[in-house]
Order: sequence, then structure tokens, then C-alpha cells
Amino acid sequence: MKKKVVLDILKEVEAGRLSADDALTRLKLEPIEELGFARVDLHRELRQGATEVIYGAGKTPEQISKIIGALMDNGAPTVLTTRMSQEAADYVAERHKLTYDPVSRVGIAGEMPEPDGVGTIVVATGGTTDIPVAEEAALTAEALGNNVKRLYDVGVSGIHRLLEHADDIVTARCIVAVAGMEGALPSVIGGLADCPVIAVPTSVGYGAAFGGVAALLSMLNSCASGLSVVNIDNGFGAGYLASMINHL
Amino acid sequence: MKKKVVLDILKEVEAGRLSADDALTRLKLEPIEELGFARVDLHRELRQGATEVIYGAGKTPEQISKIIGALMDNGAPTVLTTRMSQEAADYVAERHKLTYDPVSRVGIAGEMPEPDGVGTIVVATGGTTDIPVAEEAALTAEALGNNVKRLYDVGVSGIHRLLEHADDIVTARCIVAVAGMEGALPSVIGGLADCPVIAVPTSVGYGAAFGGVAALLSMLNSCASGLSVVNIDNGFGAGYLASMINHL
Amino acid sequence: MKKKVVLDILKEVEAGRLSADDALTRLKLEPIEELGFARVDLHRELRQGATEVIYGAGKTPEQISKIIGALMDNGAPTVLTTRMSQEAADYVAERHKLTYDPVSRVGIAGEMPEPDGVGTIVVATGGTTDIPVAEEAALTAEALGNNVKRLYDVGVSGIHRLLEHADDIVTARCIVAVAGMEGALPSVIGGLADCPVIAVPTSVGYGAAFGGVAALLSMLNSCASGLSVVNIDNGFGAGYLASMINHL
Amino acid sequence: MKKKVVLDILKEVEAGRLSADDALTRLKLEPIEELGFARVDLHRELRQGATEVIYGAGKTPEQISKIIGALMDNGAPTVLTTRMSQEAADYVAERHKLTYDPVSRVGIAGEMPEPDGVGTIVVATGGTTDIPVAEEAALTAEALGNNVKRLYDVGVSGIHRLLEHADDIVTARCIVAVAGMEGALPSVIGGLADCPVIAVPTSVGYGAAFGGVAALLSMLNSCASGLSVVNIDNGFGAGYLASMINHL
Amino acid sequence: MKKKVVLDILKEVEAGRLSADDALTRLKLEPIEELGFARVDLHRELRQGATEVIYGAGKTPEQISKIIGALMDNGAPTVLTTRMSQEAADYVAERHKLTYDPVSRVGIAGEMPEPDGVGTIVVATGGTTDIPVAEEAALTAEALGNNVKRLYDVGVSGIHRLLEHADDIVTARCIVAVAGMEGALPSVIGGLADCPVIAVPTSVGYGAAFGGVAALLSMLNSCASGLSVVNIDNGFGAGYLASMINHL
Amino acid sequence: MKKKVVLDILKEVEAGRLSADDALTRLKLEPIEELGFARVDLHRELRQGATEVIYGAGKTPEQISKIIGALMDNGAPTVLTTRMSQEAADYVAERHKLTYDPVSRVGIAGEMPEPDGVGTIVVATGGTTDIPVAEEAALTAEALGNNVKRLYDVGVSGIHRLLEHADDIVTARCIVAVAGMEGALPSVIGGLADCPVIAVPTSVGYGAAFGGVAALLSMLNSCASGLSVVNIDNGFGAGYLASMINHL
Amino acid sequence: MKKKVVLDILKEVEAGRLSADDALTRLKLEPIEELGFARVDLHRELRQGATEVIYGAGKTPEQISKIIGALMDNGAPTVLTTRMSQEAADYVAERHKLTYDPVSRVGIAGEMPEPDGVGTIVVATGGTTDIPVAEEAALTAEALGNNVKRLYDVGVSGIHRLLEHADDIVTARCIVAVAGMEGALPSVIGGLADCPVIAVPTSVGYGAAFGGVAALLSMLNSCASGLSVVNIDNGFGAGYLASMINHL
Amino acid sequence: MKKKVVLDILKEVEAGRLSADDALTRLKLEPIEELGFARVDLHRELRQGATEVIYGAGKTPEQISKIIGALMDNGAPTVLTTRMSQEAADYVAERHKLTYDPVSRVGIAGEMPEPDGVGTIVVATGGTTDIPVAEEAALTAEALGNNVKRLYDVGVSGIHRLLEHADDIVTARCIVAVAGMEGALPSVIGGLADCPVIAVPTSVGYGAAFGGVAALLSMLNSCASGLSVVNIDNGFGAGYLASMINHL
Repeated sequence: MKKKVVLDILKEVEAGRLSADDALTRLKLEPIEELGFARVDLHRELRQGATEVIYGAGKTPEQISKIIGALMDNGAPTVLTTRMSQEAADYVAERHKLTYDPVSRVGIAGEMPEPDGVGTIVVATGGTTDIPVAEEAALTAEALGNNVKRLYDVGVSGIHRLLEHADDIVTARCIVAVAGMEGALPSVIGGLADCPVIAVPTSVGYGAAFGGVAALLSMLNSCASGLSVVNIDNGFGAGYLASMINHL
Repeated sequence: MKKKVVLDILKEVEAGRLSADDALTRLKLEPIEELGFARVDLHRELRQGATEVIYGAGKTPEQISKIIGALMDNGAPTVLTTRMSQEAADYVAERHKLTYDPVSRVGIAGEMPEPDGVGTIVVATGGTTDIPVAEEAALTAEALGNNVKRLYDVGVSGIHRLLEHADDIVTARCIVAVAGMEGALPSVIGGLADCPVIAVPTSVGYGAAFGGVAALLSMLNSCASGLSVVNIDNGFGAGYLASMINHL
Repeated sequence: MKKKVVLDILKEVEAGRLSADDALTRLKLEPIEELGFARVDLHRELRQGATEVIYGAGKTPEQISKIIGALMDNGAPTVLTTRMSQEAADYVAERHKLTYDPVSRVGIAGEMPEPDGVGTIVVATGGTTDIPVAEEAALTAEALGNNVKRLYDVGVSGIHRLLEHADDIVTARCIVAVAGMEGALPSVIGGLADCPVIAVPTSVGYGAAFGGVAALLSMLNSCASGLSVVNIDNGFGAGYLASMINHL
Repeated sequence: MKKKVVLDILKEVEAGRLSADDALTRLKLEPIEELGFARVDLHRELRQGATEVIYGAGKTPEQISKIIGALMDNGAPTVLTTRMSQEAADYVAERHKLTYDPVSRVGIAGEMPEPDGVGTIVVATGGTTDIPVAEEAALTAEALGNNVKRLYDVGVSGIHRLLEHADDIVTARCIVAVAGMEGALPSVIGGLADCPVIAVPTSVGYGAAFGGVAALLSMLNSCASGLSVVNIDNGFGAGYLASMINHL
Repeated sequence: MKKKVVLDILKEVEAGRLSADDALTRLKLEPIEELGFARVDLHRELRQGATEVIYGAGKTPEQISKIIGALMDNGAPTVLTTRMSQEAADYVAERHKLTYDPVSRVGIAGEMPEPDGVGTIVVATGGTTDIPVAEEAALTAEALGNNVKRLYDVGVSGIHRLLEHADDIVTARCIVAVAGMEGALPSVIGGLADCPVIAVPTSVGYGAAFGGVAALLSMLNSCASGLSVVNIDNGFGAGYLASMINHL
Repeated sequence: MKKKVVLDILKEVEAGRLSADDALTRLKLEPIEELGFARVDLHRELRQGATEVIYGAGKTPEQISKIIGALMDNGAPTVLTTRMSQEAADYVAERHKLTYDPVSRVGIAGEMPEPDGVGTIVVATGGTTDIPVAEEAALTAEALGNNVKRLYDVGVSGIHRLLEHADDIVTARCIVAVAGMEGALPSVIGGLADCPVIAVPTSVGYGAAFGGVAALLSMLNSCASGLSVVNIDNGFGAGYLASMINHL
Repeated sequence: MKKKVVLDILKEVEAGRLSADDALTRLKLEPIEELGFARVDLHRELRQGATEVIYGAGKTPEQISKIIGALMDNGAPTVLTTRMSQEAADYVAERHKLTYDPVSRVGIAGEMPEPDGVGTIVVATGGTTDIPVAEEAALTAEALGNNVKRLYDVGVSGIHRLLEHADDIVTARCIVAVAGMEGALPSVIGGLADCPVIAVPTSVGYGAAFGGVAALLSMLNSCASGLSVVNIDNGFGAGYLASMINHL
Repeated sequence: MKKKVVLDILKEVEAGRLSADDALTRLKLEPIEELGFARVDLHRELRQGATEVIYGAGKTPEQISKIIGALMDNGAPTVLTTRMSQEAADYVAERHKLTYDPVSRVGIAGEMPEPDGVGTIVVATGGTTDIPVAEEAALTAEALGNNVKRLYDVGVSGIHRLLEHADDIVTARCIVAVAGMEGALPSVIGGLADCPVIAVPTSVGYGAAFGGVAALLSMLNSCASGLSVVNIDNGFGAGYLASMINHL
């Protein structure tokens, strides 16, 4: 349940339009933890105020579908599932309204929310092979209520492609910069932008890319200020943090 | 590159005013030049806050003092110097108004600005040995106009010390979590907070701490959402980013 | 080597019953032989508990079944097999009484012994994906005669879930703390508990988790006292050591 | 969070005694606060033995002396200081009763306690260069009330030296095995003993010893059961854990 | 479009044999970027002057075929595709003139150009298993208009095999030295040659070869002057650079 | 062709029993290099004096068979093929006399030579999972004319199993010690033996074994004198070197 | 080895002028000796430029001075010494004409040669701390007869500083790009230039810079074509190679 | 005491020229272990048959001198001390006959033995900076009774320097090949020689040499047969093993 929803209920009580008892019912505190394989945590949501999120890796189609159902029954308008297999998407789509992106393996059940963030989040990639991770970030941000501007394939070895989009970069409220191989994109963007830049190394590359380590190290050592880094291929984490920043 | 620009160049050649070789060079340079550096450059100046920053490592006392002087002559009310030696501080202090903190080796010339950020930045450390890095972050944030709340020595192996400050954590606008050794503090804080958490690994520790690598990896793999990481011992980067977020 | 032994050898040479070359070989071997292997060997048998253990990886179903049969014929009431494939379990189950857990791939042939340890062993995990390793530890401990209390999915990014079980933690005689990714759980538990904590890193995670290395380093660097570490995914080793401690 | 607590908060809002915003904050904090820190905190004090411990690295002689004084004034009969410089020892010795070992840099202020552990702790080393770490373990254990048997320079490349002490090994209640270079000692001891073996890698060696990494990896991969590992050079951690096990 | 082609067009204009407008048409500035999955970049070619290159990894046969078609329609006489699967080669061969080498997985569509480089490029390998990478380099160089001399299986553990070809080495204009395992070939060649040597480590080997890291480090540390290194298995990069040097 | 064979021919010439021309014919200098995929090198054999060896990995059954045929036609009585697949073995066995060991994937075509080494080579392993590598060493040594004594599963965590074979160890002329995981076996053997010990790390193990790196580092850091190390899983290299030493 | 040579040897044996054993040794050596070292050696001298080079590290001032003297007596007009201490420079300067640069620790004895390279070598750095390595490259190139254009402090986090020099970059014949920390400069330059780019990682940075490893990996993974890499801090190697390319 | 000495005594007994009791006296079994800081081990010497060796690192001049004295009193004609400081050498030289080499820091007390090995040991280095390690190997071998032929500065980037010494290489009985940086020397030598080659990586180099790791990996991956590796900078170990092989 989103923090906003809880606050709305509290304001109803404050305004005298809702009794404490009815509010309790609406808060639906009855535990939904009985699903067994997934401990869903109300307090977590209160503290963190997010659309519901399921980490799909290692869960069966049945488990994912069941959790989505329980969350939506509990009032969640949107449930985001990351690392969702095509098979799981097919299974869920028969039972719930689902938008599924096979590139990023992100599924969004329910309604995509209206953007309610302050500004625009830019998601940029160095190459086309970084797009799956970038889309995980972009779709996560959209599912959490953000306008997202995508700038794909603007890697630093063709710097004019990036500079053509300088306007988007200098007006963004938060930027997610996704790159594998040498991972230099966030540094260049960080030098152009004056908003937080979240760098996401990807496991794209071969040889001395070491599964994303080269890009990760490059990003951690960036000279650009206002830049921080998340784990290799962690598009979700970047999108989530970008949304948090965009809703401050 | 616009067709018009190419045609203009071709017409110059046609008219005999430009050689084929020079035309080739101009065709190469054109896409870069048309981006308008002046705009980028101006923007850079516009977007910088009032406070100027000097990276003191590898600079002589004379060099630092000279740069501070030039910046202040240019109107900067505050100049922050990181990694400043005691020797440099002594030298500068004879020439400029300087507040120097020997623990973090941060010097602040001129006036400390009034806080003008939106909320409070919490800077927390796992142990007392992490304080130099944390102070670099905290003083940076203060020099950039932020209220800072320090929570030091609240490491996770004595979890009650951290939990006593839960109210600071849930009401912060941005948190800088500094830790060496196992680097677990940001994860626990990230689970409690609903604001961005900037994790700073420190080189504190010995043996398999590997100069901060253990803490760095721990932080990159955190399960907590809303968390990102900067380089080992990069207190300045964390403080700068926290300020950026607090001024959004 | 005792002077007497050397003198005896020399006297054999003197008497012509031993050549110089053979004497040299005996002088080399003597210090080893006089240690009394028989005693060491006997002792080894004496000190092993009643339960026998088979490392199932790389053994065929036939081999495993044969070893189980031989051990039970020799009087072993319980035979624990780790890393046992479903195929091997099916094969063995047709020939012996077997309880098999497909999650941890542990098979227990014969009777599960009555707990005869001093207190309770707590087995805790950071997430649900750590459960296979945790169950290897828990079932090992149970097969070796211990009461085991499972606390699963109590990772540090939702610290209240762990704290709800503070009673179990402070009353345990030994704790096995299993975690992948940032591997912070053992540190927090170590700070709460006053019994030995055995930390087990798991290969759960992606990117900079490096197959468990991040968790391993985190645990080796823990500030909590009374904590030690076993190999990545070594649930068996942790369960075995926990049982040893619980039977002291 | 119990339904009752939530209802109470809602009733406060309903009654106009609490604003919706403050209620939201209290809903966030409640699950943390209800855990009862006091109990955890008290417990911590209760479970600590009589001996206090100071980590001396990075503390000035004055700071160490002051902490020792405060702890002894508070009733501590023994205060153990690890990584204590000779300079600090000299300073402290003028103010407190102090036994100082320059090899391990351990200082023990006050009275060495009578051994009250169940059995004997064996501390063994592979070579003579491992002795500083071993003595840190041994003195820690003694300061925490244990009988300690030292077996130094019994490395595996001269196996008979170790085997001569097989009796000590098979009768110990806990063994601390300290080794640098190839780090094989704990494996051999673990095969002989039937008590917990705590392996301590040391940074002794050169080249591919990589400051203790070779020994650390060797110990983590030991085939011997009942063995766990602490950080490189962490003699204190091993001695502390050994004492904990010997007092179970 | 190759830089040479553009220069020829400009020279036609300079000579008054071509009007500016017709030249513009011949420069084919109409964007071919509308392919969607691949951004083709005119300015890049102007700057770098290469036969068209497609990185085939991760592209479907249909995508590769479409890009080749678009490039050739746009005037490219030769299109080189690296990391091309047999399946993609079969698909393309039905639609375009294609020479495909299954060993290096290089496909060359259109006409192989006449060599127009200054001298000869030598491509040498340490063993036969390095040939796939070497052929990627050799075919790339040939497709970019170079004479290539192959010296395969001349590894340093049979030094006479290499020395038999000393003449080729001392007369080359640029050498690509490909080696896995100990990666010593470039050092020896670098000592014999007086032209630039481009070292290519390969992932050939096992155990401590670490997927090419041993060879990479060996090459980076070579005592031979005039030697530089590209990424592990990056035959294309080496061939491209060798061609660039051979056309200076 | 073995060095011995060449020497015998030369001695015949020396003794006047063979003319220079006939000797030349017998030396069969006609190149057999025309096989194309494998450069076979007479001088190499003259220098190194070994039974013919083929590295089977990456070669087709047809290629292996053809090389074996050519070598045997050229007079080689024995051809050893390492890393030979079952499929290749089946193919070769239809065409040549072949003894194939599926455990080590070693095939020996022709006649196994009579042992002509000076003493006995001991091949020892820590565990049963190390046997494939050990057999590669043992069969290589036997194919090169050595008596081999196998001591398998004598790992250091059960030291009495090793010590029971102390007489084999002290009387060996060269020892190959094969071990994965902690890799401690060579150290212990090196302490007992007074002959060269060749340590072979294996990729056996999991987690922090890092595919043999733990064992490799352990062996490189051994305190035992007379010990050297070959690559992970390089049974062939160890067997070859042991034979070389045994024929000195 | 030619049949004739073998026959000659055999005939010597036949004639009794050569023993069988000596013949064997000659058969071993022949293939090496027939390669004609003299030619190789002469060639080596021929191909070296006029300028001699001394690696100063680890040599005493006296040794360096003596070598310089000998080389100049032998006709060398210029002697370049790298890694030369101030002390050595002072010593040499008393005995020879020496230009010494304390920043790069390069000393040039004799006359700086007139530039005789084809074009201009650009040496660029990311930051000011990279200048020592860049100057080693630049002075090496100058001492070998090249025009050098320096572009210092043009790092990618302020991309406009680099773009202002686009004309230098597109007209260079070879570029040396020097960068520490994230090491992104060569990638951006490689995308702008159409000449070989030699990337030099520096050990500048801290934390996860790992002494230049982050920059090294970044450069090895660059997407830019025409780029190759030398060892960390190897300014000399880059300058030497650049000169070689500029003299082609 | 050397094995040979013991055998001589035994033969005297066998021949009836010495009584068992007198032999015992001559064997001097009285322990000299009472030195405290150094356990000297008779059986070790019996097994391994070496001139006495002291590892000097970490021992005071007084300790070294005392051990030398005790060993020589016990009959040792030669005592080799490795890693001996100049200070220790000066101290010892006043009390014992000592030859000290400051380059390798090897001290030899007593008489250098007559060579009694079978053939010649070649010690080769890649560069002049590897000489300290090479001399440790060479002096060790000489002190253990071997003829040593030094081939210094014959690195592979100037292959003719090595090939000039091909006759030394093909006639050696054992070769120690010492190299830092790319570590390619042992591979080339291994391809030329037909005796065991002991490869010694050195920590010479900078940047990606990683303190000898690059050379170590290179050597472990060598394609040359008959090659094995010791620890980085372990000249002693290589010299010891070479002597052992030369005395077989």
C-alpha cells in the first residue's frame, strides 16, 4: 500500500469523514503473509511508500500470480514484477491485467499510475545491448509514477550523439546512466548535468569486461560530482532510487 | 549535420574558396562545432552553487592559497578544500579566514553559508574509525548549505544504538551511511528509511577488508531499496550528492 | 626420535644384521612410525558420532546406495547424504528407508535420532533464496541429534523482522546465520547473541555478489565477537560444527 | 504491528489530538519502538563477561588510559587492550597495573582472572612468525578465564612435530590453529581433533601469499569437519570465540 | 562511406567536374537511421574512414541482413560482420553476396576490396587454438584493404618455428600477435620487429589462464618497445587498428 | 621419435654398422607436417626425447586418428592422447590399437613401453575427486616409461591414511601430489620426502575454492622444500616432468 | 633442418670424426644455429633510431652517467633516461649536457633532435595529476624526433574542455591519451579521431581505482576503434610507440 | 647434518670400524633445540639431506649468529642464511667465517662445499633487475654442492641474447629461469631444453605486473613441457629444488 494511500485515509479521519474503526478496516491490516513463500510486509510499505514490487527470479508462475492476486486484493493498484520469465508472464496474463516487456522481463499488473513525480527522469544507455537493463529502470520508474525520457545508444565513443541531447540532460531531475564495457557514459553525463546521476554498470562486454566489473570500477572512480552507483545490471534499484529522488 | 551546412561547404569548394582537403576536415569538425559549447559552458557556470571546491591532494600550500584567493576575488563567499594537509591549512590560515578540521582534513575558507536545503541530511557511521570520512561528507554538506545531523558509532553489531535514532532516520531527507569492515550499516538504515541512502565504504579494517573492498561489495549488494554507493573513502562525493538531493 | 631407538638401529648395523642403506631408511621412517597410527585411527572411530555422513556430489545412485547399505549393516542407525540428486534419492528410497528434502538435496536414511544436544541451534537466513543452504545446515544438525529453530527471511534490510525473534536469538546455544548478497545478517545477530555464531555466505545474488564473495568478505570482517565463517554454501559444515558445539 | 496500536493511533487522529502527518510518522516508527530496546540493551550488559576489551589501534595512549580507568572505576577487574603500542603501554603502566606483551601487543590491566572454563584451549601455530597472532589469541583467552596450552612451530611440512602433541589435540575442548603461507595446519588438526577448530590465517609470507589470502582460502576450503575461520591476523576474535565455546 | 570516397567527391567538386548540388546527392545524406535497431552514423565514417562494420553478436539474422542491405544500397561496397552465427550467414547468403568463415565467424558481404595499404600486415599466433581470433583480425584487415601474411602456430615454446619467419617479421609494417595461455609471443616478436606490434590475448587455456587474464597481463608487462594491447579475443579491434596504421 | 632411438642410430653409424645414407633414411626426415592441422616437429622430439603426445582438446576424432596414424607410420611405438573424448576414443579404436581410460580421458595408442626410469614415481591425491587429474599424470608417466605407485585419497584431514604409506614416500624418486580444495597434501608430503615433489592443484571444490585457485595458492606458499607447482588440473605436465626427472 | 645438414653430421660420425653423443648434441643445436643470429643482431642495431634510451629505475647515478658517456662516445647524439631521480640528474648534469624534467623524471642528455616525424602527436590527459606520465610520453616522443601537442586536463567530466580542441584531435597522426580514475578519456578521443589512439592508464586515484586497474580495464573495454593500451603509468612505452607510428 | 654424513657413519659401523656407541656420539643426537627461538630438527635433515639453512627474515643478528654457531658446533660445515640484512652479516662476520652477497642478501658461513652434483645447473634471468632473486637461487645451489652457470639478462624481447647460449641450455641438467614482468623466459627456455626447468617469477615491474602475479600466471600457463613454478621471488626454493634434481 502506498504511503500516499495511508496518508489519504488518515486525512479522512482527521477531517472527521471516516471513523477510526472504518479506517482500520480500510488499512486492511489482516495479514496477507499466509502465502508462505513470500512474506509481504505492511510496515515496509508504510516506510517506503512504493507500488508493490515482486522480485520474480526463482519464483514459479503460480507463486507470482498468487502474490499479485493477494496484493491487488489488498488494494494495490499496480504490481511490478522484475526478472519475470515469458512463461510466468503468459500464466499471469490469463488471470490478471498485465503489460509485459520481454526485453527487460518486467511485468506490470494493474494500471500504470499517472506520473506524480516532480520532473522528468532521463534513462540513457551507452549501447543498444544495455537496453534490457535500462528498460528495467525505465519501466520501474514509470510504474512508480514518473515521466521517463529515454536516450538510448548515446555512448561516449560517438560523443555528438550524446551532445545532441544536452537539453534533456540539463533539464532532468534525475538521470539513470546505464553502460557496460568501459562504463564511461555516467562520467560524461555527470559533467553535463546538475542533478543526481545514478550509474548502472551492465554485464555487457567480453574479455576484460569481467561481467561488468570494468564498468563498475569506472563508475566508482568517476570524477563527476553528484554521481553514485548501484550493482551490476541492477536496473530496478536505479529506477526505484530515481523515483524516490523525483518524488522528494 | 544539417544538409544545409554540408551544401554550404560544398559550395565553398565549388567556388574555389575551399580546397577538397580542408573541406574534408570541416565536414569532420562540423557536427562537433554546431553543438554550441558556449551554451554548455555557460550552463556549467550557472548551475554551480556559490561554494567553490578544491581537491587539495597533490597541491602545494602555495597553490591552494592562490586558488582560494582567486576564487574569493571572483566573488565566491565560501571555498571548500578537501584532503588539505595541516601544513597547507597553516599556510592558508595566515592569508585567509579558514576553519580547518584536522580529522577530515577539510578546510573551509570564507563564511559558512546559511542552510538553505529542504530538510536534514543524516550522516551516520558504523564505528569511530569511520569518522574522518564521515566528517568530510558532513562538512561538505554544511559548506554547501545543509543542516546535518551526525549519528556516529551506530554500527550493526550493536543494533540498539542505531535503533535509538530511528526517528532521525525516518524523518531525514537524505542519509549518508559510512562504514568500513563488513559495511552493513547502509543496508540496515536503508530498510528503516524512506529517503535516498548514499553508502560510503571506508578503508577501515585489516586482513580480508582489503582496503575497503569488503565494505564496497557489501554495499553494492544491499537488498535495501533506495541505496547507491560512492567510491571507498569518498566522503566528499557523498556529501556533495546529498546536498544536491537536499536542494532539489 | 629417542636415543635408544637410534642406538638399537646402530647395533643392528654393528651386528651385521642391517645394511648401512637400510639403516638410513629406518632412521628416516622411525620418527613417523613411533607415533602409533593405530591409536590415532582408533581414536578417530571413537570420536565420530553414531550418524555417518556421505558427500553425495559426484557419486552415482548405485555408489551412494551401496555405501549407505554398508554403513547401516555396520550398525549406523542414521546416514546423512548431502548434495544428493533427486535421481539418487529415488534409487536409494527403493532400497532403504529414506527421508529426502529436494530443496537442500539432503537425504537421511534410517531413523532420525532423538535430540541429545544441550540446547537449541538457531538457523537463520537473510532471504528466501538462502533456504537451500540453511536447510542443509538444519537437517545436518537434526540428523546429528539437535533441536533446531528456523528463522527464515529475517534479513537486515527489514530489521524488525529479525528483532521480533530476539528471544530465540538470546537463548540459543549456537546460531547458524546464512546470507548471500551483502551478507550482513551474521553481524547483526552476533551483536544480539551471546553464543557462537557460525556465518555461512551463500552464492545467492548477481553482479558484484561474485558468487558469494561479497557475503564472505562481509562476514570475515564482522565487528561482532564470537563469529566465525565457513565456505560459501557450506551448510553442512555449519550444521556439523553447530552440532559439535551443542554437544560440548 | 498490533491492530490495537494502529487503532489507538487512529483514535487519536479521530479525536483531533494527532494530525494525519504525525500519525503517519508514528505508524512508521511503531514497529521499531515496540521491540523494547531496554531489554536488548540490558541483556547486552548481562551477557558480557567481567573482562572488558579495548581495541587499541588508532587510539592515543591518553585515550586508552582514560578508558581503562573508567572501566576499572566501574568495577571491571580486568581490561584487555589489543593492538597496543609500546608507547601506550608505557603510558598506561605508569597509571595502572599492566602486563604487556610486546610480541602480540596485548596489554592486560588489573588482575588476570582465575581460569573458569570447562576444559583447555589449545593454540597452535605453523611457524614461529605466526606467534604474534597466536599470542593475541592465547592472551585473550587467558584474560577471559581459560587454561591455554600453546603448541608453536608445529607446521605441516614437519608433520611429526605436530603428531608428537596428538594427546593435547585430542583432549582439547577448543583449538585455535594459526598459520600463514599455505595455511594447512588447521586441516591437519581438524582431522585429528574432535572439538571445534578455529582457523586463523596470518599475513605471514611473501609473493603469492598475498598478505594472508592464500592461507585464508586454504582454510575456508578445508575438508576437515568442525572447522571455521576468522579474519586474517584476527587472533583476538579467535581467542574470544574459543573462550565462549570453552564456557558453554 | 569511406573517407576516401568522400574526398574523391570533394575533389571532383574542386576540379569543377561536379556541382555542389550533385555532390550532395552523391554524399547520400538521407538518413538511413530509420532501421530502428541500429543507428548508422555518417559522421563516424567520415571521421574514421572504414569499410562498414556490423557487430553481429546479439542481432537476429533478419536484423543483420537488413542492415547489410541498407548499407549496400547506400553505396558501401563491402560490409564486414563479426561474431556472425552460421545461421545468420545462411540467411544473409540467400539475399546478398557473402563470404563467410565459420572459424572466425566473420562474414564479408559485397566485394573484397583491393589492398591499398602501404605495406604488409603480419598476423601471428602462438598455437592453433588461437586461429579463430587471428582470423577475425586477418579478415578484418583484408576487408579494410590490406595485404595480410599469416604466421600461425609459431609459439615461443618452439622458438625456431618463429625464427624461420624472421624475414616476414622484420619487413612487416604492422604485426598482430595473437596468443593465449602464457601470451609470450608478442614480446618475442616485439624484440625482433621494428614496427608497431598489436598484442591480442585470447581466452585459450585452462586453470590459471583465467579466460585470457594471464595472457593479457603478460602482454601489458612486455619489455618489448612498440607494443600495445587490445581486449581479450578482440581480433576485430586489432585488425582495425593494424589497417589504420597500414594506411597512414 | 625418441631421443634414445636417434642415439641408437648414431651409435650404429659410429660403430660402422650403418652408413650415413641409410641412417638418414632411418631418421625418416621426410616431413609429416603435411597434415595441415597439426605441425609435428622432429627437432622438438630430438630435443625433448618423449613418446609422442597429442593434446586432444579441440581436435575432431578424425584429426586425432590421422595424427596418430602418421606418427606411428613414422616409427612412434606409443602415442599418448590427453583430453580425448569417448567419441574420439571409439573412432580411433577402430583404426589403431588403443587403451583408453574414460576417467582421465587419456588414450594410449600402440604399445605401453617397458619402464626404463631410474626409480618409482609416486602419484598421490587428497581425495577421490582428484583421481581424474592424477590418472592423467600417472598414465602419462607410464606411457613415458616409468613405474608408478598410486596413493589415492590420502588427504591431510585424515593424516594417518597418508602416514601409512610413509615408506613409499621416502623411497620415491619423484612424487606428484594432486589436491583440490585446501591443497595441503603437497606440503605434508614435501615434509616427509627427500625427492622432488610436483604439486598439482585441481579445480575440485566449490565456493571459495575458486576453481582451483585456493589450492594453487596454498601450494605456491608451501613451506616444504623441493616442491614446485604446475597449472590447475595439469596432470599431463606433472607426469611429463616426473618422467623427465626419473630419467635423469 | 635441411636434410643436407643432417647428412653432413652423419657422415662425420661415419668417418669417426664425431662421436654419437656429440652428434646428438649437434642435431639438437643445428636448427637454432642455422638461423643466423648475426643478421638478427645487426638488424636490431640498424633499426634503432639515433636516440638511445636508459631505464633509470634501480640504477645508481654513477651507473647512469657511465652508460650515457659510453653511448655518446659511441656516437649517440641524444640519450633519454626515464625514471631518473633528481640526485642522478644532478650527478649527470655535472658531467654531460642534460635537460631534466623533475615532474616526469625524464632526463635528456645531448641535443634534442629536430622533429622528423610525418605529423603531430597529441598527448592528452584527463586531469592535472596525470601530467607526470603524460610528460614521460611527450618528452620521449620529442627526444625521438616528433612534434608534440599537449592537451592537458581535458577530462570527460567537463567534455567542453576536450571539444574545444577537436581540431587538434582530428588532424593528429597519433594520439596518446593518458587518464587515471575512470579512464574514459581515450574512449571519447577515439570516437572523435581517425588516427591510432594509445591509451595509458595511470595509477592516479584512490579506493576502487586500485592503483590504475579501473582505468586499465576501462580502456581495454573501449568501444572506440583504433585504440590500444599500454601498461599502467607506462608513458615511455606510449611515447615510443607513437613515435614509431609517426615515423612510418 | 647431511644425509651423506650419516650414511658415511653408518658405513663405518657396517664395516666394523666404528662401534654403535661411538657412532651415536658422532651423530650428536643431543638436542640443540634449546635455542628457544628456533627449533632445529635432526630428522628433517636426515630425510632431506641438506646443508643447513636459516631463513633470516625476522630474526635479529644475535639470533642468526647463535643458530649458526650451534649448527656449526653440531658439525655442519656450511650454513646458508637467506634474506640476511647487511647488519646481520656484519654481526655474524665478526664471529664466524662468512661470505656475504649484499645483492641477494645471502650469507654463507663456513666452507663452500665442493660440487658433487651430477651436472650443471643453469640460472638464467630475463633482466638485470631479476638478479637478486637469481643469485639467491645460484648461491643456494652452490652452497648445496652444485656447479652453476649464470646466464643473466637474456630476456625474450632480445631473443638472440638467449640463443647465443643455446649450448648451455641444451646441455644443462636442470635450469632455473628467473623473470619478472611478462615472465616469458621459462617458456622459451623450456622449448629449447630437455631437462627440468624451474620457473621463478619475480616481483620486478610496475602497474599490471601486480608484484609478480603477471609473471607467475604466465609461467603457470606455459606451453613448454618439463616446467614447474615456485612462489614469487622464491630464489631459495628454486635453487634447493635444482640441487635436489642435480643430485638424483
